[in-house]
Amino acid sequence: ALLAGAPARAAEPVQPIELPKAVNPAQAELGKKLWFDPRLSRSGFISCNSCHNLSMGGSDNLKTSIGHNWQKGPINSPTVLNSSLNMAQFWDGRAEDLREQAGGPIANPGEMAFTHELAVDMLRSIPQYVAEFKQVFGSDKLSIAEVTTAIAAFEETLITPNARFDQWLKGDMKAINDQELRGYQLFKSAGCVACHNGPNLGGTSFQKMGLIEPYQTDNPAEGRYAVTKNDAERFNFKVPTLRNVELTYPYFHDGAADTLARAVDTMGRIQLGKTFSTQENADIVAFLKTLTGEQPRVVLPILPPSSDTTQRPRPFD
Amino acid sequence: ALLAGAPARAAEPVQPIELPKAVNPAQAELGKKLWFDPRLSRSGFISCNSCHNLSMGGSDNLKTSIGHNWQKGPINSPTVLNSSLNMAQFWDGRAEDLREQAGGPIANPGEMAFTHELAVDMLRSIPQYVAEFKQVFGSDKLSIAEVTTAIAAFEETLITPNARFDQWLKGDMKAINDQELRGYQLFKSAGCVACHNGPNLGGTSFQKMGLIEPYQTDNPAEGRYAVTKNDAERFNFKVPTLRNVELTYPYFHDGAADTLARAVDTMGRIQLGKTFSTQENADIVAFLKTLTGEQPRVVLPILPPSSDTTQRPRPFD
Ligand code: HEC
Ligand code: HEC
Ligand code: HEC
Ligand code: HEC
Ligand SMILES: [Ca+2]
Ligand SMILES: [Ca+2]
Ligand SMILES: [Ca+2]
Ligand SMILES: [Mg+2]
Repeated sequence: ALLAGAPARAAEPVQPIELPKAVNPAQAELGKKLWFDPRLSRSGFISCNSCHNLSMGGSDNLKTSIGHNWQKGPINSPTVLNSSLNMAQFWDGRAEDLREQAGGPIANPGEMAFTHELAVDMLRSIPQYVAEFKQVFGSDKLSIAEVTTAIAAFEETLITPNARFDQWLKGDMKAINDQELRGYQLFKSAGCVACHNGPNLGGTSFQKMGLIEPYQTDNPAEGRYAVTKNDAERFNFKVPTLRNVELTYPYFHDGAADTLARAVDTMGRIQLGKTFSTQENADIVAFLKTLTGEQPRVVLPILPPSSDTTQRPRPFD
Repeated sequence: ALLAGAPARAAEPVQPIELPKAVNPAQAELGKKLWFDPRLSRSGFISCNSCHNLSMGGSDNLKTSIGHNWQKGPINSPTVLNSSLNMAQFWDGRAEDLREQAGGPIANPGEMAFTHELAVDMLRSIPQYVAEFKQVFGSDKLSIAEVTTAIAAFEETLITPNARFDQWLKGDMKAINDQELRGYQLFKSAGCVACHNGPNLGGTSFQKMGLIEPYQTDNPAEGRYAVTKNDAERFNFKVPTLRNVELTYPYFHDGAADTLARAVDTMGRIQLGKTFSTQENADIVAFLKTLTGEQPRVVLPILPPSSDTTQRPRPFD
């Protein structure tokens, strides 16, 4: 059965996910510390993991995030799982890659509300961090560039292989059941794969949200237009990955869809002009749940303690 | 050297920490999920680990904690490491044990701001949680009692054995250096051990903060008096553990001392009427840093996803 299945799968618009090739383990280990370190925020309370919780599919399961001083965030937090496979970062693709992205939240006044300078000062005041940066990068330079390089190296490890659907793609016919297979066939025949394709079932293009019928939302995000100022790209968003989508509710850039059933219904109607029957909707949802992969096994890092000279956070000023 | 050292150590006022005897592993594993689950809070954002971060010595390293809606907490967050060894929980000992304690923060409007009923509703709406409670407790009952039992079981695993000082206590003369040994001798001869004794170097009694000289603070906490209404116990606090104290800055119930040097100086003056020289202070600080034990190795749990019927959090209402 394994061999018989394999050739057919080669033609599928979706590919199994592979582990990243060349992650530098020492960089990734340092990056993991930084990922979990709330001292990269002004309050000393918010870390990357606050909004991209690796216990919860790499997102926060909130409509929009909670940032510094309990500010209401502007947009739904996307998963960081497999985000290295996306052609660009953020809903509007305004960061080219993970390294470029990682500087953003630290200095974003609505997220961690710190500055790159203060973040680097904090790290330089902690002997164990200074030693680890030196060992990892082979130099005394400790700047935001090394910080974002290390965080990006950690993020590259956040890959979720071996979903049941990948097992099926690799030829194990029993890995998904009849309903799930029906769902996948409909996902292809209805046209979802026009946008959700590749190993990440997304992340390969920007697409209009509301291609056939306009999408109603109060959220002011303009999508790709914010980056290109090209009118034709107004309300184009990066097609999100559907990997682990079972875990990353609520859905859409405004977090308006609480359930997968609702997201699939909306997609059918406004992207494809199709109204799915209850059964069809359930079949697609069942298929989407086969995309939950093995979650990264993360041993919580032990952070080096602040020294007597480390500036103490001031969360309430 | 090992055997020669051992008998002398038997007379020390401090004992090595031992691993807890009878933790139920299935309960602890479920408790770990609950410990990290922000859905036990009204916002869906705050978990036990937010304020007792196991990457940071089991506390939040803030003067006072940040609670629901960015509320400023009333008191410094104590470490949960080794807290099962304390005779009672909270600075004023108002909870008898970990089980009794664990119900508090979930329903505290300044912390997780939820209710026991809503927390239990949330868990009951998630099939994987329902199944795990059933398996762990052998019954369909899923109430706040099972929740706090599981959390307490997890907390009982949060023991930090094998600090360098414990190695010394067990007879390894090389485990601490001359300065650290001088610090320990002064810690004993100056009288610190009158209060900081036992395996946790604390947690065995309530004591007046400011025995010889009053402690100046804006913090309104009244200590043990709040529980007993006995005037003689006004401003008595549970003596905190000194294990891992290197990691649990800032110090005292009001978090007013940023550094160990400052905390030791204050203790000397106001508890014992002693002013330590710079060298003596440094020696005691060096000794206190030998109390950092092996931190619990925590693999981040993967939380079961909410179901379509799980109430979504409303962090901004
Ligand atoms: C306060 C919440 C919050 C914090 C803290 C936060 N993020 Fe984000 N993150 C978001 C939101 C919201 C977005 C989407 C923003 C957008 O697209 O405009 C995002 C987007 C991303 C993306 C893009 C993913 C994709 O596929 O487009 C990555 C990667 C990322 N964050 C990593 C990080 C890192 C690394 C940190 C810490 C240095 C961090 N985040 C801290 C909320 C947060
Ligand atoms: C024309 C392109 C296009 C087509 C066709 C399309 N999608 Fe999408 N899909 C998108 C874009 C763009 C988004 C993000 C839109 C937003 O959040 O504003 C999205 C979002 C989603 C989401 C939510 C993901 C998340 O994490 O928020 C799901 C689920 C989804 N699509 C499933 C489907 C299904 C099922 C189909 C077929 C019925 C489909 N899509 C067809 C472009 C498309
Ligand atoms: C918003 C911050 C915050 C959250 C969330 C929080 N705690 Fe606490 N915790 C505190 C503070 C502050 C104290 C001290 C309160 C006091 O003594 O009056 C404390 C005390 C404790 C103690 C007593 C330790 C000792 O030795 O006295 C334990 C145990 C504990 N918390 C466990 C938990 C558990 C379990 C949860 C989650 C169910 C939790 N905490 C959630 C801030 C928090
Ligand atoms: C009479 C009892 C008593 C004596 C003697 C005493 N302590 Fe304390 N110690 C306490 C109490 C009570 C607290 C908590 C007070 C508070 O936070 O308000 C405390 C707190 C501390 C703290 C801060 C711990 C934390 O996590 O906040 C340190 C460090 C400390 N003591 C060290 C010492 C040293 C060193 C000595 C000897 C020089 C000493 N103590 C003598 C009772 C005592
Ligand atoms: Ca989402
Ligand atoms: Ca007791
Ligand atoms: Ca403290
Ligand atoms: Mg690119």
